[in-house]
Amino acid sequence: MTTALNTDMYEFTMLRSAVADGTADKAATFEVFARSLRNGNRYGVLAGTGRLLDAIEDYRLDTDTLDWLLDTGIIDPATREWIGDDWTFTGRITGYREGELYFPNSPVLTVSGRFGEAVLLETLILSVLNHDSAVATKAARIRAAAGTRTVIEMGSRRTHEDAAVAAARATAIAGFDATSNLAAARAYGIKAVGTAAHAWTLAHRTEAATFDAQIAALGVDTTLLIDTYDIETGTREAIAAARRAGRTGPGAIRIDSGDLALESKRCRRILDEAGATTTRIVVSGDLDEHTIATLTDAPIDGYGIGTKVVSGLTAPGFVYKLVEIADTNGMRPVSKEAEGKRTVGGRKRAWRETTAHGHAAIEHVATPMGNATPQCVGGELRNLIVELWDGSRTDRSTVADARTVNAAAIAELRDDALAVHPGTPTVLTIVTEPR
Amino acid sequence: MTTALNTDMYEFTMLRSAVADGTADKAATFEVFARSLRNGNRYGVLAGTGRLLDAIEDYRLDTDTLDWLLDTGIIDPATREWIGDDWTFTGRITGYREGELYFPNSPVLTVSGRFGEAVLLETLILSVLNHDSAVATKAARIRAAAGTRTVIEMGSRRTHEDAAVAAARATAIAGFDATSNLAAARAYGIKAVGTAAHAWTLAHRTEAATFDAQIAALGVDTTLLIDTYDIETGTREAIAAARRAGRTGPGAIRIDSGDLALESKRCRRILDEAGATTTRIVVSGDLDEHTIATLTDAPIDGYGIGTKVVSGLTAPGFVYKLVEIADTNGMRPVSKEAEGKRTVGGRKRAWRETTAHGHAAIEHVATPMGNATPQCVGGELRNLIVELWDGSRTDRSTVADARTVNAAAIAELRDDALAVHPGTPTVLTIVTEPR
Repeated sequence: MTTALNTDMYEFTMLRSAVADGTADKAATFEVFARSLRNGNRYGVLAGTGRLLDAIEDYRLDTDTLDWLLDTGIIDPATREWIGDDWTFTGRITGYREGELYFPNSPVLTVSGRFGEAVLLETLILSVLNHDSAVATKAARIRAAAGTRTVIEMGSRRTHEDAAVAAARATAIAGFDATSNLAAARAYGIKAVGTAAHAWTLAHRTEAATFDAQIAALGVDTTLLIDTYDIETGTREAIAAARRAGRTGPGAIRIDSGDLALESKRCRRILDEAGATTTRIVVSGDLDEHTIATLTDAPIDGYGIGTKVVSGLTAPGFVYKLVEIADTNGMRPVSKEAEGKRTVGGRKRAWRETTAHGHAAIEHVATPMGNATPQCVGGELRNLIVELWDGSRTDRSTVADARTVNAAAIAELRDDALAVHPGTPTVLTIVTEPR
Repeated sequence: MTTALNTDMYEFTMLRSAVADGTADKAATFEVFARSLRNGNRYGVLAGTGRLLDAIEDYRLDTDTLDWLLDTGIIDPATREWIGDDWTFTGRITGYREGELYFPNSPVLTVSGRFGEAVLLETLILSVLNHDSAVATKAARIRAAAGTRTVIEMGSRRTHEDAAVAAARATAIAGFDATSNLAAARAYGIKAVGTAAHAWTLAHRTEAATFDAQIAALGVDTTLLIDTYDIETGTREAIAAARRAGRTGPGAIRIDSGDLALESKRCRRILDEAGATTTRIVVSGDLDEHTIATLTDAPIDGYGIGTKVVSGLTAPGFVYKLVEIADTNGMRPVSKEAEGKRTVGGRKRAWRETTAHGHAAIEHVATPMGNATPQCVGGELRNLIVELWDGSRTDRSTVADARTVNAAAIAELRDDALAVHPGTPTVLTIVTEPR
């Protein structure tokens, strides 16, 4: 399935105008960045890069697609001819590694090529990076709030069925321990988990029959959902069922309703009194970093995170802006001056400066005409931009790689950057403008 | 591409337990409903039904998928055998027509079949209906606020690349006039629009050159984006370019930044003074029903709606609950008692009652053991539930059909239901519980 029509129409009408006046063949550079962080976030997590490279590999303007574009009058014969057959993106893409953090004006992706080919990728690039980074950023905040407790992504039912797969992938990059989503587990090698819903209990006459049947099928290490009728009774029934299977308690119980702080304490006491001290308690129900922060003292072993990590998110506001284009005198930096939407022209380089204590402090972004590599005293300067595509795909980093990148970048943050309440970017961006 | 793994793992582990204890073959009924409307919405718009039926047709448990499920230990050989080869859903699905409104506890979809087959569809059903209905509900509110002005969906870059296609479809159902998304235009026959981005202007030395080239390629009826540098200058350049092409003004100008109320008035005056009285003004930039409500007096002809109709939305909270299952005495209604999550058992019927003035007033939801068809005096009673699948797909309603259903249902609402500020459901749901 080609991704070529996962786009705004204006990319093709711009190409049409550009073919007509010769702009299509000019060398051009586009940059992806966000003007600010949203919702008082102190950092953003870049995610989607690997999925984007997959999508660009799947971007095919086959005869069928081109015929449709011609028949509808979106492109004209000259544009059809310019595109040719077997179109693939032959330009160059560089960018931050997937999982890396970003701050206002971080040049997270740079696309160079002929204007006509680079413009076609705009919508696809922004869709993937905006969606996946929104999820990964939220997930990183939740991961930090949960500390060492297990965090499981289970939001599939609250978002589009394919967005769900990308969301599970993004939460894995941000350090979640597992997902409920099987397509993501299969495609990206993420650990999948799941046992039963309330329907399973309702399908039986009693919780005893429910739990006996589940333990018989899935083993006594399974997680029993104990809140269909009454949480205390459910917990006692779970213990009784485990005992009938020869153990003091099941692997875990899950509470999906009620006051989770109170209920988890009550369940823990019942479990401990019955000797089921190793039975884990997993809770779920509209959780995010804010609710998790209120549960740090509760005897909880794992969180199931659904709605709040896949929906209701503010997109990071990544934009794709032309920053330079070929002119008679070589590459000309360009910038926009619309109110509140000013941009800085020119292809950028970027480094993150850490202090002598190893804390991320400054994001240096430089245009070619700006200063050379910035100097820093005592700390270190880390280049942020790597090659991803050069004529064809050159980067094949995995989800596991991105997870490692993310963990390392998060580890560089000062502790206060991980607070859950709204704040300001924890790293200061310094853009060196042309002199 | 099969949709079978677009699911939470627990559907398959439940099936495994259910195969082991015989529950898998029991006749069962599941119901989709929302406990409440979100964000103070006065109504919800059901969308996704047609796309869901497509997805259920694409749900195939092929050998490859089954081997993976077996190899990972998610299912066991007995479950593999129960599923068999060439699995398709052979049960029955009924529900509200796509585009219909819903209120708290409206039974928007009912799935009957063997427990084992109906349980497998849960996640897919909820993903599609939650996502598409969230977008359609927001879009209907925006459509109402915009009155007779043109509304264009252009949010693709702010959401997952495939969710974008579904979102464009949902906004068309809710009455939007066009979309920027080409995949949606092609798949669903929705009108696509688009001309150029700021990059097109930046790629040229002057706005004059930009607009001349665009008019040469796309015709003088095109929409010129006039806010790259200065809105007033851009407007005058747009008029000048149209004049060079022999017309008093271009088809439209678009303003994508600044104070849209002020700028649209300024642009209108400049256009009118130049005789370009038929040039339309289209505005965009983080618009939703609330910002549109502040622009009713501005001389605006069309709104481009992006971020706010595709992202940051609260999912409707549709759930998929077992409401009855076969027992020795026939079908047994079942219900859950968890705190704040109580359900009503039994297969439901539903009617919407309109007053003598034709206004929607009451949503009657009845269980089989409840009252018979409710009586109403003076008004009318409209059955809400139609057949969608009976062994195989029986409903092939189009996006155009759903749009018609939606327009008719919205037309039944009292005027105050279309207010943009938060309120309560405009139709009262009366659930007749078993006596």
